Amino acid sequence: MYNWYFEDMKPGARFETAGKTLSEAEILDFAFRYDPQPFHIDATSAEKGPYGGIIASGIHTIAVALRLFFQAGVFAPEISMGSPGCDELRWLQPVRPGDTIRSAGEILEVRESGSRPQLGIIRYRLEVLNQRDEVVMSMIGTAFLRRRPAAAGGGDA
Amino acid sequence: MYNWYFEDMKPGARFETAGKTLSEAEILDFAFRYDPQPFHIDATSAEKGPYGGIIASGIHTIAVALRLFFQAGVFAPEISMGSPGCDELRWLQPVRPGDTIRSAGEILEVRESGSRPQLGIIRYRLEVLNQRDEVVMSMIGTAFLRRRPAAAGGGDA
Repeated sequence: MYNWYFEDMKPGARFETAGKTLSEAEILDFAFRYDPQPFHIDATSAEKGPYGGIIASGIHTIAVALRLFFQAGVFAPEISMGSPGCDELRWLQPVRPGDTIRSAGEILEVRESGSRPQLGIIRYRLEVLNQRDEVVMSMIGTAFLRRRPAAAGGGDA
Repeated sequence: MYNWYFEDMKPGARFETAGKTLSEAEILDFAFRYDPQPFHIDATSAEKGPYGGIIASGIHTIAVALRLFFQAGVFAPEISMGSPGCDELRWLQPVRPGDTIRSAGEILEVRESGSRPQLGIIRYRLEVLNQRDEVVMSMIGTAFLRRRPAAAGGGDA
């Protein structure tokens, strides 16, 4: 567990999570509910499709990556205040049934909110790697984090 | 059903989907599996938290938006070849239990791939609206689409 508080985060600090093996059943179930494209849910069609077989929905990949991120305790408990969004989300390689993916990344920017002194804002790069260490997904995320009350005031943003 | 083929898509063409009501149970289940932050999974903690109650995971919102998009048949069957990513994903307003969300948007850019003549590339803006017509999420998506074989050749990208 990293258990980073806002005040602990510095640009360049790196994190890496444990992995998760994506079963075919989980890939099919997620996609059937949320992203029912043939190459996610129909093995027969997928074989003749653009990826030569079933691949995971990109939304499934980001969902698992996020779960691994929180499970690794990158953020200390109760400090997350949500996220305004993310940028440059890229699906770079297919994730196939049986693949094991993990998240890794680094803190890019850390700043205090001027308008809300209790709020810290970070940007981080997150990559999802498979068992061959290929980057299958990448994104830049922004997170709002609660600051330690004693450190409030004097924000510059 | 829109059933748009690549050749039918023009910048400015608009789409809008049916809605989906997000139950508290579904919000809790999705978040417990993929985004277990207190304001997504713990009603007691969430009440005292930054949103004054449970809100849906942003990944849940994009997952439902995508399902509605495919369910509306914006793309004709079998033409989707996947997506390289999306940009400027923004969560603008909380989605709360009982909210009904739908997707709407427009085609921004349409081009042919020069390197892969059978491939078309589109960029589209997607917004997620709630029952008060507030935009709760927005993003810019890119999609690879299969072109009609007869139209192949002569690409300029």
